[in-house]
Amino acid sequence: MIDETVEEIAEMQTHSSSVVAIKAARALLALGDREFPTVEEYERALERNSDALRRANPSHATLQTTQRELVSRVTESDAETVPAAQAVTEDVVAEVVDRVESAKRRAGERAAAFLEDGDTVFTYDYSSTVLEALTAAAEAGVSLSVRCAEARPRYLGRKMARTLSEFDGFDVTLVVDGAAGIFLDDCDRVMVGMDCIVEDTLYNRVGTYPVAATAADVGVPFVVVGAESKIVGGGFAFENEQRSVSEVIREPADGFAVENPAYDATPMRLVDTVVTDDAVHEY
Amino acid sequence: MIDETVEEIAEMQTHSSSVVAIKAARALLALGDREFPTVEEYERALERNSDALRRANPSHATLQTTQRELVSRVTESDAETVPAAQAVTEDVVAEVVDRVESAKRRAGERAAAFLEDGDTVFTYDYSSTVLEALTAAAEAGVSLSVRCAEARPRYLGRKMARTLSEFDGFDVTLVVDGAAGIFLDDCDRVMVGMDCIVEDTLYNRVGTYPVAATAADVGVPFVVVGAESKIVGGGFAFENEQRSVSEVIREPADGFAVENPAYDATPMRLVDTVVTDDAVHEY
Repeated sequence: MIDETVEEIAEMQTHSSSVVAIKAARALLALGDREFPTVEEYERALERNSDALRRANPSHATLQTTQRELVSRVTESDAETVPAAQAVTEDVVAEVVDRVESAKRRAGERAAAFLEDGDTVFTYDYSSTVLEALTAAAEAGVSLSVRCAEARPRYLGRKMARTLSEFDGFDVTLVVDGAAGIFLDDCDRVMVGMDCIVEDTLYNRVGTYPVAATAADVGVPFVVVGAESKIVGGGFAFENEQRSVSEVIREPADGFAVENPAYDATPMRLVDTVVTDDAVHEY
Repeated sequence: MIDETVEEIAEMQTHSSSVVAIKAARALLALGDREFPTVEEYERALERNSDALRRANPSHATLQTTQRELVSRVTESDAETVPAAQAVTEDVVAEVVDRVESAKRRAGERAAAFLEDGDTVFTYDYSSTVLEALTAAAEAGVSLSVRCAEARPRYLGRKMARTLSEFDGFDVTLVVDGAAGIFLDDCDRVMVGMDCIVEDTLYNRVGTYPVAATAADVGVPFVVVGAESKIVGGGFAFENEQRSVSEVIREPADGFAVENPAYDATPMRLVDTVVTDDAVHEY
């Protein structure tokens, strides 16, 4: 069961943080059905399996933080029997799963408080957490203008524009990514999601860095929204994913190369605020 | 003849500076076939027609500067007879046409001197003047790596990548515009063309500003190449062209707007060097 989950995580093309992290947390429950002679052996098995799950995607922040938390909370509980340690594991898994499931919504609700009636927001890519924030704002009766950049190569901004076009009182405009410099000018803030934040770097969909650099030059605040579990410490090695060149150009590229990285690295000095389910971090 | 040229300029969708400016300069030669009672009346006709030509595209920098030069040089020649003033006009038109025709090549040759063997250059859009610079470099045996951003919405960077892929010793890579932040990192400089420079603003293909802002943040010099006649003083009102929405998205945009401006405005403080046929301007 755990081995299968390890393989599944390693192969998963989707980077939906919550799905992967929840799957991995629940995989550890398989150890609750086995017998162990001592608490120490149970903890070693927990650690070994958790390591395997984390290594299945070393650049997946929420997976890394939730697994580390699970192991340390079980170990620190100082359970006196194996069944007690297994019961603690079960409780902590349930709590972590609940937190991951609700983190997006709570981060979105917190971020919605930043949006005032009549504001203009610039957003890049399709972020389900930004969508939570805009949904919460809409439900509170806040009217917004939203400029959606298309997010080449996969045009995920079109999906954002289409989704937001259903919201009452929202005035939505789709523009090419390069038009950021023109349309940021009358925006109150940029709001984007995140893949993760590792020390002084925000990793997010390729194209985030130019939007952040332009926003800083225009003088528009740059707000990032996402689960607190996506903020990770050092020792975490983010690995960029190289996606298919056919997303960039379908015709044959004779005589030239095509590169298509999935993520870029934005220096945190260009970020003004990070809103998570736990807190508002000002930079 | 002049009226027809005025209409033609007003309708011209292409912004090829040299073609428009040369056409307008040559249109003034029509006044050489007419009779005028005094030099003053000839000069007034010249001024009136030149004004009409300039007004046909008030945001076309080379048209504005060449027309102003033509009128002032003929007026300042203090010709004593109408045929003498007409002869001066003919000489100045020939000189201006020659300069416009060769400006691109000379600006390109001057810019090529900035490129050293083994350099990596980031370029945006398709600029025939940048192409002149890269051609001159290739002819001098300089090997370069060139990163071409695709320049949405019309993907003119693909044309640049295809053209450069024919050059011996060139290593060409095509990337999406949003990938600038990743690929600028190992570039020696950015080199782009220009529509015009008006006081403290560079107008160029939409998407230039985010590249310039990112280059400044990464610390890569930003070099602009173009004819000196594209640098104009105050009083010149650049008008952005709004292009077809179908260039951004072909499917129906139900419930949301789509905007597609042709140019953006880059603050000159983000530009390090402007190379023209006349000079190298450092900022």
